[in-house]
Amino acid sequence: MPDQPALVGPVEIIGTGLLGTSVGLACRRAGLEVVLSDTSPGHVRTARGLGAGRKRLPADRPQLVVVAVPPAQLGAVIVQALRDTEAYDAVVTDVGSVKSAPLDEVAAAVPAQTLRRYVGGHPMAGSERSGPLAGTASLFDGRPWAVTPHPAADPAAVALVEELAGLCGAVALRLDPEAHDRAVARTSHVPHLMSALVAARLTSAPADHLALSGQGVRDVTRVAAGDPALYGQIVAGNARAVTELLTEVRAQLETLIEAVSGGDGEALRAVLAEGVAGTQAIPGKHGGPQTPGASVFVSVPDHPGELARLFADAGESGVNIEDVHIDHDPGRPVGLVELLVAEDGAERLLTSLESRGWVTHR
Amino acid sequence: MPDQPALVGPVEIIGTGLLGTSVGLACRRAGLEVVLSDTSPGHVRTARGLGAGRKRLPADRPQLVVVAVPPAQLGAVIVQALRDTEAYDAVVTDVGSVKSAPLDEVAAAVPAQTLRRYVGGHPMAGSERSGPLAGTASLFDGRPWAVTPHPAADPAAVALVEELAGLCGAVALRLDPEAHDRAVARTSHVPHLMSALVAARLTSAPADHLALSGQGVRDVTRVAAGDPALYGQIVAGNARAVTELLTEVRAQLETLIEAVSGGDGEALRAVLAEGVAGTQAIPGKHGGPQTPGASVFVSVPDHPGELARLFADAGESGVNIEDVHIDHDPGRPVGLVELLVAEDGAERLLTSLESRGWVTHR
Repeated sequence: MPDQPALVGPVEIIGTGLLGTSVGLACRRAGLEVVLSDTSPGHVRTARGLGAGRKRLPADRPQLVVVAVPPAQLGAVIVQALRDTEAYDAVVTDVGSVKSAPLDEVAAAVPAQTLRRYVGGHPMAGSERSGPLAGTASLFDGRPWAVTPHPAADPAAVALVEELAGLCGAVALRLDPEAHDRAVARTSHVPHLMSALVAARLTSAPADHLALSGQGVRDVTRVAAGDPALYGQIVAGNARAVTELLTEVRAQLETLIEAVSGGDGEALRAVLAEGVAGTQAIPGKHGGPQTPGASVFVSVPDHPGELARLFADAGESGVNIEDVHIDHDPGRPVGLVELLVAEDGAERLLTSLESRGWVTHR
Repeated sequence: MPDQPALVGPVEIIGTGLLGTSVGLACRRAGLEVVLSDTSPGHVRTARGLGAGRKRLPADRPQLVVVAVPPAQLGAVIVQALRDTEAYDAVVTDVGSVKSAPLDEVAAAVPAQTLRRYVGGHPMAGSERSGPLAGTASLFDGRPWAVTPHPAADPAAVALVEELAGLCGAVALRLDPEAHDRAVARTSHVPHLMSALVAARLTSAPADHLALSGQGVRDVTRVAAGDPALYGQIVAGNARAVTELLTEVRAQLETLIEAVSGGDGEALRAVLAEGVAGTQAIPGKHGGPQTPGASVFVSVPDHPGELARLFADAGESGVNIEDVHIDHDPGRPVGLVELLVAEDGAERLLTSLESRGWVTHR
């Protein structure tokens, strides 16, 4: 953030769902005036009740407008916001999941001088819940927030949007709109679609087959539980980048089918090895390189208080727990908890837990 | 388990890797005599040192032989075990991930009377580690253990293998071999391969694109980190069932590509909706129907002791934590922890945590 903040408000939020309300709450937390608009008066009332801002009045002159409407309406609402704020040169941004299609729509509808005031954005945050009641000032804490200026964007406008991201607790990452869309096609949209294809295969399975489901299929299909209407809009808005990647997937799926049905073990292993390399390409916690980690497995009775006792005991070891997975076991009142820790902490954690009576799986 | 246990030992374990050593340890825990064989004398020594049993001697007459060798060697080793135990009618089982191909191999090699003594098995347990040192008596606690008799199997042999599963702490699930292979193709092998296809797309991405990776892509690609040599053997051994399902996936991928590239929102939503239905088909914890759950999100400082404090405070609420996810955030020393609880416990947990000073995300 600059020494002298350029973002002084008021900030207008158009669309008071989960993201819009959360941006409002974060701006209010930072002391900025926030004014709210929504086609649903009920949503504005709820967001206002939560402290996300006040209702926008005709005389308001927002410095920054944040458009937080569903993907299919983004372009039209951004255009309207640019026109409504012509008199006082407000900067307009949005929080949509795709960036090229709305930009094209806006560029086709407004003159170049107006387009300078628009800078797209996309905070990588969400929740399984939606609507203003799910909003929270801390939704963006520590999350990446893509800021996606087009080449003709006003540098001061770009800086203002980056300041918004920082003020919301997020980490601004600058990408051009097309690069952003290719990035989220790869890291979000295509994984979601492939997860849905795996999950779709489960609908036709006999129940006794599904009883063999382990943690793997649960992990792979977790995101596929998301709302089809919302994800349908997101994917449709990024059709070009998604199609390009799905076409690559189809080609490799062909290779895979030939390898498996033809008994070509080497070709099969090559695909699996490329998958391993891909998992290693995902950046580690805090954006750094992935550090080698180790898993510590512990049996935990499945009743209240046991996890608390486990983490209290784990805390005594002084080893930082990087991640946790709890296995869902059929038929038995015992859970298997996997604690992921730095490699050099695993032995210390195991010894410490065992000395406190925990059954570990070495 | 019957009132009068039929499984009295000795149990022979052929192959003292992770699974074989764990079966040995579980049988020893139950007081049975265990004898160990492996082509690697070092592995036998290690397993023996852990207390998994003693070295097999020529005069031993095991009641039950458990074959725990890599997938590609299963058939041949089962045949040899049946022949070696002809004189005293031992029951032979295995712990391999696929069942039809080894059975075909065995059926082609031994007479019908001998085949009666073979009953396949597959405990749904594993670890990211391998080898005898990763073995543990509790590896199978609460896990499903598929028992897969062929039609001509001796009922007493089937009962003995089911008794082994129970004695190891697992829940025996009876399936015919072909049904088992179709089940694991669906719940394990195809999810693994699709995960690998998603992960493989990440290898060609620029680093700043991967910075947008969220929890979704991490979940989807987690299993793809598994050993290509091992998974290559497993998939190759289940080629027919895997190919059949991959062909279904290919057909639906075609539909998806056409829907996305052609702007057919309805067809796209239909695929996504089938994915949602699939996630709901996976049985819940303890094999029961999935109960509606709720997520509670909490901000947690990323240093030792904080998770312990969170779980201690969560324990005070009396609400049972069903699962946990820790978000990996770039750039900030704060983590987002998702606690999954029964729907009727979420509000109580939120209130309880907030009263103890935690920042929750409502």
